[in-house]
Amino acid sequence: MQAADPLAFGAEGGLFRRLRDTAGADWTGYTWHPFVQRLSDGTLPLKAFQHYLIQDYLFLIHFARAKALAVVKGESLEAMRAKAAGVLAILDETKLHLRFCAEWGLSEAEVTRVPETAETVSYTRWVMDRGLAGDILDLEIALAPCTVGYGEVARRIMADPACDLANNPYRSWIEAYAAEDYQALAQSAAARIDFLGVTHGGDARFNRLAADFAEAARLEQRFWQQGLVAA
Amino acid sequence: MQAADPLAFGAEGGLFRRLRDTAGADWTGYTWHPFVQRLSDGTLPLKAFQHYLIQDYLFLIHFARAKALAVVKGESLEAMRAKAAGVLAILDETKLHLRFCAEWGLSEAEVTRVPETAETVSYTRWVMDRGLAGDILDLEIALAPCTVGYGEVARRIMADPACDLANNPYRSWIEAYAAEDYQALAQSAAARIDFLGVTHGGDARFNRLAADFAEAARLEQRFWQQGLVAA
Amino acid sequence: MQAADPLAFGAEGGLFRRLRDTAGADWTGYTWHPFVQRLSDGTLPLKAFQHYLIQDYLFLIHFARAKALAVVKGESLEAMRAKAAGVLAILDETKLHLRFCAEWGLSEAEVTRVPETAETVSYTRWVMDRGLAGDILDLEIALAPCTVGYGEVARRIMADPACDLANNPYRSWIEAYAAEDYQALAQSAAARIDFLGVTHGGDARFNRLAADFAEAARLEQRFWQQGLVAA
Amino acid sequence: MQAADPLAFGAEGGLFRRLRDTAGADWTGYTWHPFVQRLSDGTLPLKAFQHYLIQDYLFLIHFARAKALAVVKGESLEAMRAKAAGVLAILDETKLHLRFCAEWGLSEAEVTRVPETAETVSYTRWVMDRGLAGDILDLEIALAPCTVGYGEVARRIMADPACDLANNPYRSWIEAYAAEDYQALAQSAAARIDFLGVTHGGDARFNRLAADFAEAARLEQRFWQQGLVAA
Repeated sequence: MQAADPLAFGAEGGLFRRLRDTAGADWTGYTWHPFVQRLSDGTLPLKAFQHYLIQDYLFLIHFARAKALAVVKGESLEAMRAKAAGVLAILDETKLHLRFCAEWGLSEAEVTRVPETAETVSYTRWVMDRGLAGDILDLEIALAPCTVGYGEVARRIMADPACDLANNPYRSWIEAYAAEDYQALAQSAAARIDFLGVTHGGDARFNRLAADFAEAARLEQRFWQQGLVAA
Repeated sequence: MQAADPLAFGAEGGLFRRLRDTAGADWTGYTWHPFVQRLSDGTLPLKAFQHYLIQDYLFLIHFARAKALAVVKGESLEAMRAKAAGVLAILDETKLHLRFCAEWGLSEAEVTRVPETAETVSYTRWVMDRGLAGDILDLEIALAPCTVGYGEVARRIMADPACDLANNPYRSWIEAYAAEDYQALAQSAAARIDFLGVTHGGDARFNRLAADFAEAARLEQRFWQQGLVAA
Repeated sequence: MQAADPLAFGAEGGLFRRLRDTAGADWTGYTWHPFVQRLSDGTLPLKAFQHYLIQDYLFLIHFARAKALAVVKGESLEAMRAKAAGVLAILDETKLHLRFCAEWGLSEAEVTRVPETAETVSYTRWVMDRGLAGDILDLEIALAPCTVGYGEVARRIMADPACDLANNPYRSWIEAYAAEDYQALAQSAAARIDFLGVTHGGDARFNRLAADFAEAARLEQRFWQQGLVAA
Repeated sequence: MQAADPLAFGAEGGLFRRLRDTAGADWTGYTWHPFVQRLSDGTLPLKAFQHYLIQDYLFLIHFARAKALAVVKGESLEAMRAKAAGVLAILDETKLHLRFCAEWGLSEAEVTRVPETAETVSYTRWVMDRGLAGDILDLEIALAPCTVGYGEVARRIMADPACDLANNPYRSWIEAYAAEDYQALAQSAAARIDFLGVTHGGDARFNRLAADFAEAARLEQRFWQQGLVAA
């Protein structure tokens, strides 16, 4: 019997877990990227974090648009309500980013004027395009690695012996994703993939879905990587 | 000088008002349709109202999807927030419909099982399609006749000498749209059209926009009409 | 063992055949609608046919757009090529309609100015919306009842003892769909549904796909019906 | 009076020319990128060209999808026909790429298996997203820098004293875009922007359109750049 993986979200045997495990090194390379490791041990240069956070701000705007596309898909009233609330939650999350930026002396107007990098454009528009080309399952598969992956990133950091949270300069960022409410959000996003896998033919479509899931993980890796390169 | 029209939303000379006035009989035929007149004087058969309200419930689900498409358009963070809140508001509005239906002994499951009529399908999917084919201005022009028009419908009823609200069986429906908050919503939807008209070339695009606006008004007429026919 | 049905396209046990058989009376009510029966025995009033054909012209423009959306879905290079060629074929088919109209003294400008009916708007925009909401399988399921159904309509007419083709005023219309190339097109559209059913989880998604297939058949019925009502 | 620019497509004072001139260094940095200069003088390493061409193959598949989205926009029957033919032309252009690849010993299956780079994903999906978010003018503005720009690239190379076509290893590539039919295609794409600028409010929307045009030029620069980096 396979031992339970304390890092993984989603049910054993469910579609999310199968996609995660199939992604293998692509997934680990994302959720335990050197950028994350240095967030964890607190050695990440501030400049790297700043570059990342500003791009993540721009990212979230388009991520909210992609979530809105999931409302357009109209799978059920319940799913529409949850996703519309998710859009608002993401748009609120941008305010958190702006608070960080304000601490660094960057105003909203300045942040918004920063050009999107290729890493930001490629990831966000690829998600939108999977949503345009595919159905709700394709779209949610493109969205999930971000939502669930950040939950796993936080779990990995919290389990990291090198992480001394009390003295970590990125403590508030880490705690935002380690918090119970975010962890519950990540769990419910994984559970939704499991659900859609059953209703929308996940088994028959597994190869294509796995390719998309792994592509999203690689796009996340590049997204972290741009921060390291910028520092 | 043109006297101010107390029924009309939007600023004098703004795009919304120009579209409304250009639509002429198509607009009046919608906002003062025999169905509306009989709502106003209380003579509308209950069966007509029931048919209408059930279809309106099904309509709202797709109208919420179309509003979500406006979030996807991503014109500005502010517009995205307002529209995402609008999606949730519409999905809440459906609960009001279900309360009416419950009074008539119809459960949500039963209402949802009613097939959409041609009138419902044609109007809702036409709005979605204008949003897919066009930009945020095209989409908002397709959405506005419903949102703003219901505000004008309520104004017309409140100004109607034949309307005795105290004894009107449809009083709660009328009051929902005559209420200050709905009137403010209608006004802001008209103001948004005026704004987008300026930023998105409304003058140069006027003929096409006017054709769409009038088409939406005619689709609304058919939507009322199905209620009368059903009774 | 079930006897082969000489009218049906698609392979026994394939997804198309299962959808067709599940649609039952919805499918028969479409492919052997009174409008079709009177086309077959030649008693259809010309006015009915004219109304139908003009709306079918307007229909085809949006049907071509929906086929283009299948190219956007980008399932494979081969499928994209076939579908893009299909878009051009449909746009050519409109010329055939214009030739009929020209015989009746109607110019292209006049035909294009005819307003779309609720039947035309509801069917075409519903197909587009299924394509926006769903994946390539959802979209092709919405498209197939038209493409394959017209092939079956022609087979039914050719097998109808009441049809005297030599003296039938609608002979050229009938022969266009009974022709080998159209019959091959219908067969390949059915085969494509079978193929996508396998690759895109048709079994798990059967209930929803069957509901859409039956809805398309009912939208086709209303499309014929409008011709009879107009006469 | 401004002297005519022999490199520029589109009419003086038309929207395309204004966008090109406003893009300034973004446009020149694309159409006379070091990659292009080394194509022109024949010093481009084969490895750079190979990397570029394989990514361009993958690019074209999504560019064809974006052109299909222009058919979905359904602006006019004439525009739909032209664009559907354009989709097929692009899909044919991929065969030219495969011929090059075959000469290098790379089969279609191998080329298709090459992962898309961030440069390829970002550019193609950004175009698609502009098409989803905007109207036909927004989409054509996102498409035009590629189509028209390659025409200008060829003009620049043909006018380059450093270009000795007879001995240039990239001669067939250069001649494909310098050919009369491609030059005519580029001219008609520029003329279409001018036309849509008039019908779709280009003046009022100029700032946003100019930002998109310049973004596309920068995405093209990155696309060339990846070839140089790979060598």
